[in-house]
Amino acid sequence: MSDFQQKLQKYAELAVRVGANVQPGQTLIVHAPILSVDLVRLIVKSAYTVGAKLVKVKWSDETVTRLQYELAPDETFNIAPKWYAAEMTEEVENGAAILHVLAENPDLLQGIPSSRITAAQRVRSHELRQYREYQMADKFSWSLIAYPSAEWAAKVFPDLPASEQMDKLWEAIFSTVRVDLDNPVEAWNEHLKTLSSKADILNSKRYKKLHYLAPGTDLTIELAKDHLWVAAESVNQQGHTFVANMPTEEVFTAPLKTGVNGKVSSTKPLSYSGNIIDNFSLTFENGRIVDVQAETGLETLQHLVEMDEGSHYLGEVALVPHKSPISDKNILFYNTLFDENASNHLAIGNAYAFNLKGGKDMTQEQLAANGLNSSLTHVDFMIGSGEMDINGVTEDNTEEPIFRKGNWAI
Amino acid sequence: MSDFQQKLQKYAELAVRVGANVQPGQTLIVHAPILSVDLVRLIVKSAYTVGAKLVKVKWSDETVTRLQYELAPDETFNIAPKWYAAEMTEEVENGAAILHVLAENPDLLQGIPSSRITAAQRVRSHELRQYREYQMADKFSWSLIAYPSAEWAAKVFPDLPASEQMDKLWEAIFSTVRVDLDNPVEAWNEHLKTLSSKADILNSKRYKKLHYLAPGTDLTIELAKDHLWVAAESVNQQGHTFVANMPTEEVFTAPLKTGVNGKVSSTKPLSYSGNIIDNFSLTFENGRIVDVQAETGLETLQHLVEMDEGSHYLGEVALVPHKSPISDKNILFYNTLFDENASNHLAIGNAYAFNLKGGKDMTQEQLAANGLNSSLTHVDFMIGSGEMDINGVTEDNTEEPIFRKGNWAI
Repeated sequence: MSDFQQKLQKYAELAVRVGANVQPGQTLIVHAPILSVDLVRLIVKSAYTVGAKLVKVKWSDETVTRLQYELAPDETFNIAPKWYAAEMTEEVENGAAILHVLAENPDLLQGIPSSRITAAQRVRSHELRQYREYQMADKFSWSLIAYPSAEWAAKVFPDLPASEQMDKLWEAIFSTVRVDLDNPVEAWNEHLKTLSSKADILNSKRYKKLHYLAPGTDLTIELAKDHLWVAAESVNQQGHTFVANMPTEEVFTAPLKTGVNGKVSSTKPLSYSGNIIDNFSLTFENGRIVDVQAETGLETLQHLVEMDEGSHYLGEVALVPHKSPISDKNILFYNTLFDENASNHLAIGNAYAFNLKGGKDMTQEQLAANGLNSSLTHVDFMIGSGEMDINGVTEDNTEEPIFRKGNWAI
Repeated sequence: MSDFQQKLQKYAELAVRVGANVQPGQTLIVHAPILSVDLVRLIVKSAYTVGAKLVKVKWSDETVTRLQYELAPDETFNIAPKWYAAEMTEEVENGAAILHVLAENPDLLQGIPSSRITAAQRVRSHELRQYREYQMADKFSWSLIAYPSAEWAAKVFPDLPASEQMDKLWEAIFSTVRVDLDNPVEAWNEHLKTLSSKADILNSKRYKKLHYLAPGTDLTIELAKDHLWVAAESVNQQGHTFVANMPTEEVFTAPLKTGVNGKVSSTKPLSYSGNIIDNFSLTFENGRIVDVQAETGLETLQHLVEMDEGSHYLGEVALVPHKSPISDKNILFYNTLFDENASNHLAIGNAYAFNLKGGKDMTQEQLAANGLNSSLTHVDFMIGSGEMDINGVTEDNTEEPIFRKGNWAI
């Protein structure tokens, strides 16, 4: 077996055993682009090996997707994915785990009228709202992992010869998910412990607000009263752990919907639904986004913010040191799964129920009453840099350093 | 564009314009193995070009399928494809066309316990019975086309170097579907006319029975009283033509369920659900299969015959001259789509409603009352050879030659 094959095998096992943490008798649903077939077959085999009852693969192809956006009539984009949503919802109600293999071309939908993209996203989000609600409350295990595509690799390494781009992206992925280590599963257990300890400290502090200061950014974020800082490892309704993102370096919680004030500037481009948004800023008053600026992709950003009422508010605040294994690579991935784990970030849209004490068992109304935002969308964007300071504001309005020059100060 | 690319493009257009005959505003559902991605993308583009509203691709991968059969627990094979069946049934009720791209490895499920295969087929057939009923009555347009896989090509051309097998199978496919001609669409229109003229002659004859004589075969098949001989071109509920099989050389009708007597011997191997059945014979009494023999795959054949009550009877009788464009190639394809079009054949299982006058509008009970067989399955098997004579028996018991030495005598 070649070195590459060995790593691919370890990657598949990591996704199955740590990411989705597939249990005996469980169904696993894998969403994957057809170009990732070699990894997917290893995942399928690995899942059956740990005792999966059934592995369903939902294949996709970005070229087919692009052809639809280019050539189908307008009405097509209002067709809800009714059967897909019904199947997914029932599967997770019955305890299935979900694994997404991502190999997205960041520019896939460049030049497509944004009305088509927005319509498709709205109808999809609406149809999948019950599924999303379960996801946001950790009802089922899910995990995202990445796979290089030629288009994505070319975007990340434009100065390399085409023949080297894929290898380089593989190397970066394998390294950030610790598959280049001897025992990735053990390495992940160590890593998850370290992240948890940061969450424990923040939870004991019970800060009322966070205050962000950096070039182009002066922002205060009030936290939900019973907020919980959470690290990478989640626990589903059956009590099984899972890791939703691989890689992950973040510790995150829920902002108070109406408690965000000031201005924040992006520090990395955001690839959103096949388009790039870059050098943008958002201004907040009492939680609501009241101004949007962007050098690139303004229209795409506006459509995102205007998707529904909740997309005018934040749903997540996440802390990631500027000095992290991903950040140290100094690679711009144009993929949120990686870029968000190299940078402090926020998310527009829905908040996670598990970021509130007792939130997993609350209704949507109870979550709202506790100050959590609700939306059909949830999109992370990056704001961290080596120049960012963050203070925690205590109940008696003392400011304590949490981050200095982009790194943990606690 | 290379010669191969040009042919692939023509093939895609042929499948869309003649096979499924996609109409403006229609949904097309393509079932395809991921290895056929280059053809599928051309099909998708071609379908949108003729005005399709939406093209949904349902991808599959035989390796994933094989892994399931090898590694999943027994209970898995009793899980019905509930969502798939519901989606397909609703789509065709709403007028969708269906295109299947086949690239089957004839030995895919070799060594798998046949209990697993039978269980999966039974539960699938049962779940898809409404869909199958629509299909058998021409309610919607559907078409099958082929695509080479390395495993299939190796099976067909075992004596060629591996590097040439795929090319050779492509050549055979392109030739049999007339894609190597300048204007395949026009060539198909001519071909369909020729086949229809044979069907017209047989329909005017109104034979009571067919009498088959060949080495190992002495069989009489009574035809349903109001039987209709049909050639390749079908007409769906909306009045649009389609061609269900590409290639096709057959003219076929429905036997009287209880009117089959004698013995028939196979002349080509049958690849059925990933296993080969070869050198087999069936003996009939009053329509029912009362004895089954096979040198290879006896167990698989027995499971097929014992799937349900209707799988003990015939549902189709098809005439194909021994001298035909496919037969002349003298290639054993181990794929029914090709082999059945190089040979007279019969089908075990369900009869086509459209093979009876007025049958498309009849209930299942009316079809049964008119002598048509009903089953969850429909599997063609090849019985033709250069030594086969077939007589038509008229109402007054005169025998007239239809085939002599394997070829048309009318």
